[in-house]
Amino acid sequence: MVDAAGPLIIIGGHEDKEHDRVILRQVAKRLKGGRLVIATIASHEPDGYFESYRQAFADIGLTDLVELYVNERAESQSPEALSLLDGAGGVFFSGGDQLRISSQIGDTPIEKRIRELHRAGGLIAGTSAGASVMSETMLVNGPSAESYRIGELHMAPGLGLLRNVIIDQHFAERGRYGRLIGAVAHNPRLLGIGIDEDTAIVVEEDRFLVIGSGAAYVVDGEGSTHSNIAEARAEQALSMFDIRVHVLSAGDTFAIKERRPACGGSDNPSSLQK
Amino acid sequence: MVDAAGPLIIIGGHEDKEHDRVILRQVAKRLKGGRLVIATIASHEPDGYFESYRQAFADIGLTDLVELYVNERAESQSPEALSLLDGAGGVFFSGGDQLRISSQIGDTPIEKRIRELHRAGGLIAGTSAGASVMSETMLVNGPSAESYRIGELHMAPGLGLLRNVIIDQHFAERGRYGRLIGAVAHNPRLLGIGIDEDTAIVVEEDRFLVIGSGAAYVVDGEGSTHSNIAEARAEQALSMFDIRVHVLSAGDTFAIKERRPACGGSDNPSSLQK
Repeated sequence: MVDAAGPLIIIGGHEDKEHDRVILRQVAKRLKGGRLVIATIASHEPDGYFESYRQAFADIGLTDLVELYVNERAESQSPEALSLLDGAGGVFFSGGDQLRISSQIGDTPIEKRIRELHRAGGLIAGTSAGASVMSETMLVNGPSAESYRIGELHMAPGLGLLRNVIIDQHFAERGRYGRLIGAVAHNPRLLGIGIDEDTAIVVEEDRFLVIGSGAAYVVDGEGSTHSNIAEARAEQALSMFDIRVHVLSAGDTFAIKERRPACGGSDNPSSLQK
Repeated sequence: MVDAAGPLIIIGGHEDKEHDRVILRQVAKRLKGGRLVIATIASHEPDGYFESYRQAFADIGLTDLVELYVNERAESQSPEALSLLDGAGGVFFSGGDQLRISSQIGDTPIEKRIRELHRAGGLIAGTSAGASVMSETMLVNGPSAESYRIGELHMAPGLGLLRNVIIDQHFAERGRYGRLIGAVAHNPRLLGIGIDEDTAIVVEEDRFLVIGSGAAYVVDGEGSTHSNIAEARAEQALSMFDIRVHVLSAGDTFAIKERRPACGGSDNPSSLQK
Protein backbone atom coordinates (compact mmCIF):
# COMPACT_ATOMS: atom_id res chain seq x y z
CA MET A 1 0.00 0.00 0.00
CA VAL A 2 1.36 3.33 -1.01
CA ASP A 3 2.02 6.01 1.54
CA ALA A 4 0.69 8.82 -0.59
CA ALA A 5 -0.45 10.25 -3.85
CA GLY A 6 2.87 10.19 -5.73
CA PRO A 7 3.42 7.39 -8.25
CA LEU A 8 6.20 4.83 -7.94
CA ILE A 9 7.92 3.45 -11.03
CA ILE A 10 9.77 0.30 -10.05
CA ILE A 11 12.07 -1.04 -12.77
CA GLY A 12 13.70 -4.48 -13.01
CA GLY A 13 17.01 -3.08 -14.28
CA HIS A 14 18.53 -2.57 -17.75
CA GLU A 15 15.70 -0.37 -18.99
CA ASP A 16 16.08 0.62 -22.62
CA LYS A 17 17.93 3.95 -22.84
CA GLU A 18 18.51 4.12 -26.59
CA HIS A 19 15.48 2.97 -28.57
CA ASP A 20 11.78 3.30 -27.67
CA ARG A 21 12.54 4.09 -24.03
CA VAL A 22 9.03 3.04 -23.01
CA ILE A 23 9.89 3.12 -19.33
CA LEU A 24 11.91 6.35 -19.27
CA ARG A 25 9.09 8.03 -21.20
CA GLN A 26 6.71 7.04 -18.42
CA VAL A 27 9.12 8.55 -15.90
CA ALA A 28 9.18 11.80 -17.89
CA LYS A 29 5.41 11.78 -18.37
CA ARG A 30 4.60 11.26 -14.71
CA LEU A 31 6.97 13.97 -13.54
CA LYS A 32 4.45 16.78 -13.03
CA GLY A 33 6.84 19.70 -13.23
CA GLY A 34 10.02 20.24 -11.27
CA ARG A 35 13.41 18.74 -11.78
CA LEU A 36 14.29 15.07 -11.71
CA VAL A 37 16.94 14.15 -9.15
CA ILE A 38 19.05 11.18 -10.31
CA ALA A 39 20.16 9.52 -7.07
CA THR A 40 23.27 7.45 -7.84
CA ILE A 41 23.81 6.56 -4.19
CA ALA A 42 23.58 2.80 -4.77
CA SER A 43 26.78 2.88 -6.77
CA HIS A 44 30.30 2.87 -5.44
CA GLU A 45 31.51 4.39 -8.65
CA PRO A 46 28.72 6.64 -9.84
CA ASP A 47 30.60 8.42 -12.60
CA GLY A 48 28.91 7.67 -15.87
CA TYR A 49 25.49 6.78 -14.49
CA PHE A 50 24.28 10.33 -14.40
CA GLU A 51 25.65 11.08 -17.84
CA SER A 52 23.89 8.07 -19.37
CA TYR A 53 20.55 9.15 -17.89
CA ARG A 54 21.17 12.76 -18.87
CA GLN A 55 21.52 11.72 -22.49
CA ALA A 56 18.69 9.21 -22.41
CA PHE A 57 16.23 11.74 -20.95
CA ALA A 58 17.44 14.68 -23.06
CA ASP A 59 16.44 12.86 -26.25
CA ILE A 60 12.89 12.56 -24.97
CA GLY A 61 12.67 16.16 -23.86
CA LEU A 62 13.52 16.04 -20.16
CA THR A 63 16.52 18.23 -19.46
CA ASP A 64 16.15 19.54 -15.89
CA LEU A 65 18.19 16.83 -14.15
CA VAL A 66 20.56 16.92 -11.20
CA GLU A 67 22.74 14.21 -9.65
CA LEU A 68 22.50 13.33 -5.98
CA TYR A 69 25.43 11.27 -4.78
CA VAL A 70 26.47 10.54 -1.23
CA ASN A 71 29.86 9.00 -0.68
CA GLU A 72 29.69 8.91 3.12
CA ARG A 73 26.68 8.94 5.37
CA ALA A 74 27.79 12.23 6.93
CA GLU A 75 27.12 13.96 3.60
CA SER A 76 23.44 13.01 3.90
CA GLN A 77 23.26 15.40 6.82
CA SER A 78 24.73 18.31 4.85
CA PRO A 79 22.61 21.27 3.68
CA GLU A 80 24.41 21.14 0.33
CA ALA A 81 23.17 17.65 -0.43
CA LEU A 82 19.70 18.48 0.82
CA SER A 83 19.50 21.57 -1.38
CA LEU A 84 19.72 19.35 -4.46
CA LEU A 85 16.17 18.30 -3.67
CA ASP A 86 14.87 21.91 -3.71
CA GLY A 87 12.38 22.23 -6.50
CA ALA A 88 12.45 18.53 -7.26
CA GLY A 89 9.42 16.92 -8.85
CA GLY A 90 10.81 13.43 -8.59
CA VAL A 91 13.71 11.20 -7.65
CA PHE A 92 15.14 8.36 -9.74
CA PHE A 93 17.33 5.81 -7.91
CA SER A 94 19.85 4.17 -10.22
CA GLY A 95 21.35 0.70 -9.76
CA GLY A 96 24.17 -0.68 -7.64
CA ASP A 97 23.86 -1.99 -4.09
CA GLN A 98 20.55 -1.43 -2.30
CA LEU A 99 22.32 -1.60 1.04
CA ARG A 100 24.26 1.51 0.10
CA ILE A 101 21.00 3.44 -0.34
CA SER A 102 19.49 2.30 2.96
CA SER A 103 22.69 2.65 4.98
CA GLN A 104 23.77 6.01 3.52
CA ILE A 105 20.46 7.87 3.61
CA GLY A 106 18.23 5.86 6.00
CA ASP A 107 16.89 8.13 8.74
CA THR A 108 18.67 11.24 7.41
CA PRO A 109 17.24 14.61 6.29
CA ILE A 110 17.60 13.43 2.68
CA GLU A 111 15.41 10.40 3.23
CA LYS A 112 12.90 12.54 5.08
CA ARG A 113 12.77 15.03 2.20
CA ILE A 114 12.29 12.22 -0.33
CA ARG A 115 9.39 10.84 1.71
CA GLU A 116 7.82 14.31 1.92
CA LEU A 117 8.18 14.72 -1.82
CA HIS A 118 6.47 11.37 -2.38
CA ARG A 119 3.67 12.14 0.06
CA ALA A 120 3.10 15.46 -1.66
CA GLY A 121 2.53 13.70 -4.98
CA GLY A 122 6.09 13.56 -6.30
CA LEU A 123 7.34 10.72 -8.45
CA ILE A 124 9.79 8.17 -7.07
CA ALA A 125 11.40 5.80 -9.55
CA GLY A 126 14.10 3.19 -9.07
CA THR A 127 15.84 0.59 -11.16
CA SER A 128 17.62 -2.60 -10.03
CA ALA A 129 18.97 -1.78 -6.52
CA GLY A 130 16.75 1.30 -6.68
CA ALA A 131 13.79 -1.02 -7.18
CA SER A 132 14.62 -3.36 -4.30
CA VAL A 133 14.95 -0.48 -1.84
CA MET A 134 11.29 0.49 -2.35
CA SER A 135 10.14 -2.42 -0.15
CA GLU A 136 9.58 -2.27 3.60
CA THR A 137 11.76 -5.37 3.99
CA MET A 138 14.11 -5.61 1.05
CA LEU A 139 16.05 -8.42 -0.53
CA VAL A 140 19.78 -7.68 -0.32
CA ASN A 141 21.52 -10.87 -1.31
CA GLY A 142 20.59 -14.40 -2.14
CA PRO A 143 21.42 -17.02 -4.68
CA SER A 144 20.40 -16.54 -8.27
CA ALA A 145 19.90 -19.48 -10.62
CA GLU A 146 19.31 -22.01 -7.91
CA SER A 147 16.52 -23.13 -5.65
CA TYR A 148 16.23 -21.43 -2.30
CA ARG A 149 18.03 -23.17 0.55
CA ILE A 150 17.09 -22.45 4.11
CA GLY A 151 19.25 -19.72 5.58
CA GLU A 152 20.64 -18.38 2.34
CA LEU A 153 18.83 -15.09 2.12
CA HIS A 154 19.94 -11.68 3.31
CA MET A 155 17.06 -9.28 3.91
CA ALA A 156 17.13 -5.80 5.46
CA PRO A 157 14.80 -2.87 6.09
CA GLY A 158 14.23 -0.86 2.92
CA LEU A 159 12.77 2.62 2.42
CA GLY A 160 9.26 1.20 2.71
CA LEU A 161 7.71 3.43 0.06
CA LEU A 162 5.62 0.43 -1.00
CA ARG A 163 4.35 -1.60 1.92
CA ASN A 164 3.45 -5.26 2.23
CA VAL A 165 5.49 -6.31 -0.77
CA ILE A 166 9.02 -7.51 -1.39
CA ILE A 167 10.59 -6.66 -4.73
CA ASP A 168 13.15 -8.58 -6.75
CA GLN A 169 14.70 -7.42 -10.02
CA HIS A 170 16.61 -8.82 -13.04
CA PHE A 171 14.06 -11.50 -12.33
CA ALA A 172 13.86 -14.03 -15.17
CA GLU A 173 17.28 -13.05 -16.48
CA ARG A 174 19.02 -14.10 -13.27
CA GLY A 175 16.69 -16.98 -12.39
CA ARG A 176 15.48 -15.47 -9.12
CA TYR A 177 12.23 -17.41 -8.63
CA GLY A 178 13.80 -19.56 -5.99
CA ARG A 179 14.91 -16.70 -3.80
CA LEU A 180 11.70 -14.70 -4.16
CA ILE A 181 9.63 -17.74 -3.14
CA GLY A 182 12.07 -18.20 -0.25
CA ALA A 183 11.55 -14.58 0.81
CA VAL A 184 7.76 -14.97 0.68
CA ALA A 185 8.00 -18.21 2.68
CA HIS A 186 9.45 -16.24 5.60
CA ASN A 187 6.18 -14.35 5.95
CA PRO A 188 3.44 -14.67 3.32
CA ARG A 189 2.04 -11.33 4.49
CA LEU A 190 4.53 -9.94 2.00
CA LEU A 191 3.52 -10.26 -1.61
CA GLY A 192 6.53 -11.13 -3.77
CA ILE A 193 6.97 -9.07 -6.94
CA GLY A 194 9.70 -10.11 -9.39
CA ILE A 195 10.40 -7.69 -12.23
CA ASP A 196 12.26 -8.56 -15.44
CA GLU A 197 14.83 -6.32 -17.07
CA ASP A 198 13.44 -3.51 -19.25
CA THR A 199 10.14 -3.95 -17.42
CA ALA A 200 8.52 -1.83 -14.73
CA ILE A 201 5.49 -1.57 -12.54
CA VAL A 202 3.86 1.83 -12.23
CA VAL A 203 2.22 2.01 -8.81
CA GLU A 204 -0.60 4.47 -8.21
CA GLU A 205 -2.57 4.18 -5.02
CA ASP A 206 -3.19 0.49 -4.48
CA ARG A 207 -2.77 -0.69 -8.02
CA PHE A 208 0.05 -1.18 -10.46
CA LEU A 209 0.33 -1.31 -14.24
CA VAL A 210 3.01 -3.32 -16.03
CA ILE A 211 5.01 -1.61 -18.80
CA GLY A 212 8.05 -2.61 -20.84
CA SER A 213 9.17 -5.64 -22.77
CA GLY A 214 9.29 -8.41 -20.14
CA ALA A 215 7.08 -9.70 -17.37
CA ALA A 216 6.35 -8.98 -13.73
CA TYR A 217 5.70 -12.02 -11.53
CA VAL A 218 3.51 -11.92 -8.46
CA VAL A 219 4.18 -14.64 -5.88
CA ASP A 220 1.26 -14.88 -3.43
CA GLY A 221 1.82 -17.18 -0.46
CA GLU A 222 -1.45 -16.34 1.30
CA GLY A 223 -3.12 -19.67 0.46
CA SER A 224 0.04 -21.66 0.99
CA THR A 225 -0.60 -24.89 2.91
CA HIS A 226 2.93 -25.95 3.92
CA SER A 227 6.48 -24.73 4.16
CA ASN A 228 9.54 -26.25 5.82
CA ILE A 229 11.28 -22.92 6.36
CA ALA A 230 11.06 -22.97 10.15
CA GLU A 231 11.71 -26.67 10.60
CA ALA A 232 14.33 -27.55 8.03
CA ARG A 233 18.05 -27.62 8.59
CA ALA A 234 20.12 -24.88 7.05
CA GLU A 235 21.15 -25.60 3.45
CA GLN A 236 18.19 -27.88 2.86
CA ALA A 237 16.12 -26.97 -0.18
CA LEU A 238 12.88 -25.14 0.49
CA SER A 239 9.59 -26.98 0.34
CA MET A 240 6.43 -24.89 -0.04
CA PHE A 241 3.01 -25.89 -1.35
CA ASP A 242 0.12 -24.04 -2.98
CA ILE A 243 1.78 -20.81 -4.01
CA ARG A 244 -0.30 -18.67 -6.35
CA VAL A 245 1.69 -17.11 -9.19
CA HIS A 246 0.62 -14.51 -11.73
CA VAL A 247 2.69 -13.65 -14.79
CA LEU A 248 1.84 -10.13 -15.93
CA SER A 249 2.99 -8.44 -19.11
CA ALA A 250 2.58 -4.96 -20.60
CA GLY A 251 -0.91 -3.61 -20.06
CA ASP A 252 -1.85 -5.95 -17.23
CA THR A 253 -2.72 -4.43 -13.88
CA PHE A 254 -2.72 -5.71 -10.32
CA ALA A 255 -4.76 -4.64 -7.29
CA ILE A 256 -2.29 -4.97 -4.42
CA LYS A 257 -4.73 -4.99 -1.49
CA GLU A 258 -7.10 -7.45 -3.16
CA ARG A 259 -4.16 -9.42 -4.58
CA ARG A 260 -5.94 -9.71 -7.94
CA PRO A 261 -4.62 -9.27 -11.48
CA ALA A 262 -6.55 -7.93 -14.44
CA CYS A 263 -5.65 -8.10 -18.09
CA GLY A 264 -5.54 -4.90 -19.98
CA GLY A 265 -5.94 -5.57 -23.67
CA SER A 266 -2.48 -6.96 -23.91
CA ASP A 267 -2.95 -7.64 -27.61
CA ASN A 268 -2.36 -3.94 -28.09
CA PRO A 269 0.28 -3.03 -25.57
CA SER A 270 1.47 0.05 -27.41
CA SER A 271 -1.70 1.90 -26.49
CA LEU A 272 -0.93 1.33 -22.84
CA GLN A 273 2.64 2.45 -22.99
CA LYS A 274 1.98 5.98 -24.15
CA MET B 1 0.04 -41.37 -15.33
CA VAL B 2 2.42 -44.18 -15.78
CA ASP B 3 1.88 -46.84 -18.40
CA ALA B 4 2.85 -49.71 -16.16
CA ALA B 5 4.43 -51.11 -13.07
CA GLY B 6 8.06 -50.15 -13.68
CA PRO B 7 9.42 -47.11 -11.84
CA LEU B 8 10.69 -44.00 -13.60
CA ILE B 9 13.59 -42.01 -12.19
CA ILE B 10 13.61 -38.60 -13.85
CA ILE B 11 16.71 -36.54 -13.08
CA GLY B 12 17.28 -32.81 -13.62
CA GLY B 13 20.86 -33.29 -14.85
CA HIS B 14 24.28 -33.15 -13.18
CA GLU B 15 23.47 -35.86 -10.63
CA ASP B 16 26.29 -36.42 -8.17
CA LYS B 17 28.56 -39.20 -9.47
CA GLU B 18 31.40 -38.91 -6.96
CA HIS B 19 30.14 -38.33 -3.42
CA ASP B 20 26.91 -39.60 -1.81
CA ARG B 21 25.36 -40.50 -5.15
CA VAL B 22 21.88 -40.38 -3.62
CA ILE B 23 20.21 -40.55 -7.01
CA LEU B 24 22.40 -43.22 -8.61
CA ARG B 25 21.93 -45.35 -5.49
CA GLN B 26 18.19 -45.17 -6.05
CA VAL B 27 18.72 -46.28 -9.64
CA ALA B 28 20.78 -49.25 -8.43
CA LYS B 29 18.29 -50.08 -5.69
CA ARG B 30 15.26 -50.06 -7.95
CA LEU B 31 16.88 -52.22 -10.59
CA LYS B 32 15.37 -55.57 -9.65
CA GLY B 33 17.92 -57.83 -11.27
CA GLY B 34 19.16 -57.81 -14.83
CA ARG B 35 21.64 -55.50 -16.45
CA LEU B 36 21.39 -51.73 -16.73
CA VAL B 37 21.53 -50.41 -20.28
CA ILE B 38 23.14 -46.95 -20.46
CA ALA B 39 21.52 -45.34 -23.50
CA THR B 40 23.84 -42.56 -24.69
CA ILE B 41 21.72 -41.89 -27.78
CA ALA B 42 21.07 -38.24 -26.85
CA SER B 43 24.71 -37.42 -27.34
CA HIS B 44 26.45 -36.71 -30.60
CA GLU B 45 29.75 -37.65 -29.02
CA PRO B 46 28.96 -40.38 -26.54
CA ASP B 47 32.51 -41.44 -25.74
CA GLY B 48 33.16 -40.83 -22.10
CA TYR B 49 29.52 -40.84 -20.91
CA PHE B 50 29.41 -44.59 -20.55
CA GLU B 51 32.77 -44.72 -18.83
CA SER B 52 31.73 -42.09 -16.26
CA TYR B 53 28.57 -44.03 -15.38
CA ARG B 54 30.47 -47.31 -15.35
CA GLN B 55 32.80 -45.94 -12.68
CA ALA B 56 30.07 -44.16 -10.72
CA PHE B 57 27.91 -47.30 -10.54
CA ALA B 58 30.81 -49.70 -9.92
CA ASP B 59 31.69 -47.92 -6.68
CA ILE B 60 28.17 -48.55 -5.40
CA GLY B 61 28.14 -52.20 -6.45
CA LEU B 62 26.40 -52.16 -9.82
CA THR B 63 28.66 -53.64 -12.45
CA ASP B 64 26.46 -55.28 -15.08
CA LEU B 65 26.22 -52.32 -17.46
CA VAL B 66 26.15 -52.10 -21.24
CA GLU B 67 26.14 -49.09 -23.56
CA LEU B 68 23.44 -48.60 -26.17
CA TYR B 69 24.38 -46.01 -28.76
CA VAL B 70 22.73 -45.36 -32.09
CA ASN B 71 24.53 -43.13 -34.51
CA GLU B 72 21.99 -43.39 -37.32
CA ARG B 73 18.33 -44.29 -37.16
CA ALA B 74 18.95 -47.35 -39.36
CA GLU B 75 20.95 -48.92 -36.53
CA SER B 76 17.82 -48.88 -34.35
CA GLN B 77 16.39 -51.46 -36.70
CA SER B 78 19.38 -53.81 -36.37
CA PRO B 79 19.24 -57.07 -34.40
CA GLU B 80 22.67 -56.24 -32.93
CA ALA B 81 21.42 -53.09 -31.24
CA LEU B 82 18.26 -54.81 -30.09
CA SER B 83 20.22 -57.67 -28.54
CA LEU B 84 21.81 -55.20 -26.11
CA LEU B 85 18.43 -55.09 -24.39
CA ASP B 86 18.34 -58.86 -23.86
CA GLY B 87 18.33 -59.55 -20.16
CA ALA B 88 18.02 -55.87 -19.30
CA GLY B 89 16.40 -54.91 -16.02
CA GLY B 90 16.47 -51.21 -16.77
CA VAL B 91 17.51 -48.43 -19.14
CA PHE B 92 19.23 -45.18 -18.19
CA PHE B 93 19.11 -42.35 -20.74
CA SER B 94 22.06 -39.99 -20.41
CA GLY B 95 22.07 -36.31 -21.42
CA GLY B 96 22.50 -34.50 -24.72
CA ASP B 97 19.73 -33.60 -27.13
CA GLN B 98 16.29 -35.06 -26.46
CA LEU B 99 15.43 -34.76 -30.15
CA ARG B 100 18.18 -37.24 -30.93
CA ILE B 101 16.50 -39.83 -28.70
CA SER B 102 13.03 -39.35 -30.17
CA SER B 103 14.19 -39.10 -33.78
CA GLN B 104 16.70 -41.98 -33.64
CA ILE B 105 14.62 -44.56 -31.78
CA GLY B 106 11.01 -43.32 -32.04
CA ASP B 107 8.80 -46.07 -33.51
CA THR B 108 11.68 -48.57 -33.89
CA PRO B 109 12.10 -52.06 -32.42
CA ILE B 110 14.38 -50.55 -29.76
CA GLU B 111 11.72 -48.17 -28.51
CA LYS B 112 9.16 -50.99 -28.56
CA ARG B 113 11.46 -53.19 -26.48
CA ILE B 114 12.07 -50.38 -23.96
CA ARG B 115 8.30 -49.90 -23.60
CA GLU B 116 7.81 -53.61 -23.08
CA LEU B 117 10.54 -53.63 -20.45
CA HIS B 118 8.86 -50.76 -18.63
CA ARG B 119 5.42 -52.34 -18.82
CA ALA B 120 6.86 -55.56 -17.43
CA GLY B 121 8.15 -53.71 -14.36
CA GLY B 122 11.58 -52.63 -15.57
CA LEU B 123 13.20 -49.41 -14.45
CA ILE B 124 13.55 -46.48 -16.84
CA ALA B 125 15.76 -43.59 -15.74
CA GLY B 126 16.85 -40.48 -17.58
CA THR B 127 18.87 -37.37 -16.85
CA SER B 128 18.73 -33.98 -18.57
CA ALA B 129 17.70 -34.74 -22.19
CA GLY B 130 16.89 -38.22 -20.94
CA ALA B 131 14.46 -36.62 -18.46
CA SER B 132 12.72 -34.42 -21.02
CA VAL B 133 12.07 -37.32 -23.37
CA MET B 134 9.91 -39.09 -20.76
CA SER B 135 7.00 -36.69 -21.47
CA GLU B 136 4.26 -37.28 -24.01
CA THR B 137 4.91 -33.82 -25.42
CA MET B 138 8.44 -32.80 -24.62
CA LEU B 139 10.22 -29.48 -24.41
CA VAL B 140 13.01 -29.35 -26.99
CA ASN B 141 14.18 -25.77 -27.04
CA GLY B 142 13.21 -22.51 -25.52
CA PRO B 143 14.82 -19.56 -23.86
CA SER B 144 16.44 -19.98 -20.48
CA ALA B 145 16.86 -17.07 -18.10
CA GLU B 146 14.11 -14.95 -19.60
CA SER B 147 10.36 -14.69 -19.50
CA TYR B 148 8.44 -16.70 -22.04
CA ARG B 149 7.58 -14.84 -25.21
CA ILE B 150 4.78 -16.05 -27.44
CA GLY B 151 6.08 -18.31 -30.17
CA GLU B 152 9.48 -19.01 -28.67
CA LEU B 153 9.05 -22.60 -27.63
CA HIS B 154 9.91 -25.75 -29.53
CA MET B 155 7.96 -28.79 -28.39
CA ALA B 156 7.85 -32.27 -29.93
CA PRO B 157 6.40 -35.69 -29.20
CA GLY B 158 8.45 -37.52 -26.57
CA LEU B 159 8.48 -41.18 -25.57
CA GLY B 160 5.38 -40.65 -23.44
CA LEU B 161 6.42 -42.96 -20.61
CA LEU B 162 4.87 -40.45 -18.22
CA ARG B 163 1.60 -39.04 -19.48
CA ASN B 164 -0.11 -35.72 -18.85
CA VAL B 165 3.05 -33.98 -17.72
CA ILE B 166 5.77 -31.95 -19.39
CA ILE B 167 9.24 -32.13 -17.85
CA ASP B 168 11.96 -29.50 -17.75
CA GLN B 169 15.45 -29.99 -16.31
CA HIS B 170 18.43 -27.93 -15.06
CA PHE B 171 15.48 -25.97 -13.77
CA ALA B 172 16.55 -23.34 -11.24
CA GLU B 173 20.14 -23.40 -12.48
CA ARG B 174 19.16 -22.24 -15.96
CA GLY B 175 16.22 -20.07 -14.95
CA ARG B 176 13.60 -22.09 -16.82
CA TYR B 177 10.49 -20.99 -14.95
CA GLY B 178 9.38 -18.78 -17.79
CA ARG B 179 9.52 -21.47 -20.42
CA LEU B 180 7.82 -24.14 -18.31
CA ILE B 181 4.96 -21.76 -17.52
CA GLY B 182 4.83 -20.99 -21.26
CA ALA B 183 4.61 -24.70 -22.05
CA VAL B 184 1.80 -25.19 -19.53
CA ALA B 185 -0.04 -22.16 -20.94
CA HIS B 186 -0.36 -23.99 -24.28
CA ASN B 187 -2.55 -26.61 -22.64
CA PRO B 188 -2.99 -26.73 -18.87
CA ARG B 189 -3.98 -30.37 -19.19
CA LEU B 190 -0.24 -30.93 -18.93
CA LEU B 191 1.21 -30.55 -15.49
CA GLY B 192 4.61 -28.83 -15.66
CA ILE B 193 7.40 -30.45 -13.66
CA GLY B 194 10.73 -28.60 -13.41
CA ILE B 195 13.59 -30.54 -11.86
CA ASP B 196 16.80 -28.99 -10.49
CA GLU B 197 20.24 -30.43 -11.05
CA ASP B 198 21.25 -33.30 -8.73
CA THR B 199 17.55 -33.79 -8.02
CA ALA B 200 15.15 -36.45 -9.26
CA ILE B 201 11.57 -37.59 -9.07
CA VAL B 202 10.97 -41.30 -8.56
CA VAL B 203 7.64 -42.13 -10.18
CA GLU B 204 5.75 -45.22 -9.09
CA GLU B 205 2.21 -45.68 -10.28
CA ASP B 206 0.55 -42.28 -9.99
CA ARG B 207 2.82 -40.75 -7.39
CA PHE B 208 6.34 -39.41 -7.26
CA LEU B 209 8.90 -38.92 -4.51
CA VAL B 210 11.56 -36.18 -4.65
CA ILE B 211 15.18 -37.14 -3.92
CA GLY B 212 18.47 -35.29 -4.18
CA SER B 213 19.84 -31.93 -3.13
CA GLY B 214 17.62 -29.44 -5.00
CA ALA B 215 13.93 -28.92 -5.64
CA ALA B 216 11.25 -30.10 -8.05
CA TYR B 217 8.69 -27.49 -9.06
CA VAL B 218 5.14 -28.36 -10.07
CA VAL B 219 3.37 -25.79 -12.25
CA ASP B 220 -0.37 -26.45 -12.27
CA GLY B 221 -2.38 -24.36 -14.72
CA GLU B 222 -5.73 -26.07 -14.08
CA GLY B 223 -7.21 -23.18 -12.12
CA SER B 224 -5.67 -20.54 -14.35
CA THR B 225 -8.11 -17.73 -15.15
CA HIS B 226 -6.39 -15.96 -18.05
CA SER B 227 -3.63 -16.34 -20.58
CA ASN B 228 -2.76 -14.30 -23.66
CA ILE B 229 -1.04 -17.16 -25.45
CA ALA B 230 -3.59 -17.49 -28.23
CA GLU B 231 -4.27 -13.78 -28.67
CA ALA B 232 -0.93 -12.10 -28.28
CA ARG B 233 1.45 -11.24 -31.06
CA ALA B 234 4.62 -13.26 -31.42
CA GLU B 235 7.46 -12.01 -29.23
CA GLN B 236 5.12 -10.46 -26.70
CA ALA B 237 5.72 -11.55 -23.14
CA LEU B 238 3.32 -14.13 -21.75
CA SER B 239 0.56 -13.10 -19.40
CA MET B 240 -1.06 -15.85 -17.30
CA PHE B 241 -2.99 -15.55 -14.04
CA ASP B 242 -3.65 -17.88 -11.11
CA ILE B 243 -1.02 -20.54 -11.64
CA ARG B 244 -0.60 -22.90 -8.70
CA VAL B 245 3.04 -23.71 -7.91
CA HIS B 246 4.47 -26.26 -5.50
CA VAL B 247 8.14 -26.35 -4.52
CA LEU B 248 9.05 -29.87 -3.41
CA SER B 249 12.31 -30.97 -1.83
CA ALA B 250 13.76 -34.32 -0.71
CA GLY B 251 11.14 -36.48 0.95
CA ASP B 252 8.11 -34.67 -0.44
CA THR B 253 5.70 -36.65 -2.60
CA PHE B 254 3.16 -35.70 -5.23
CA ALA B 255 -0.01 -37.46 -6.39
CA ILE B 256 -0.08 -36.80 -10.11
CA LYS B 257 -3.73 -37.59 -10.84
CA GLU B 258 -5.02 -35.62 -7.84
CA ARG B 259 -2.41 -32.91 -8.44
CA ARG B 260 -1.66 -32.77 -4.71
CA PRO B 261 1.66 -32.57 -2.84
CA ALA B 262 2.41 -34.09 0.56
CA CYS B 263 5.34 -33.40 2.82
CA GLY B 264 7.35 -36.35 3.94
CA GLY B 265 9.28 -35.47 7.03
CA SER B 266 11.69 -33.31 5.12
CA ASP B 267 13.57 -32.50 8.31
CA ASN B 268 15.07 -35.95 7.98
CA PRO B 269 15.62 -36.47 4.29
CA SER B 270 18.31 -39.07 4.70
CA SER B 271 15.77 -41.62 5.87
CA LEU B 272 13.91 -41.20 2.60
CA GLN B 273 16.92 -41.46 0.39
CA LYS B 274 17.90 -44.95 1.40
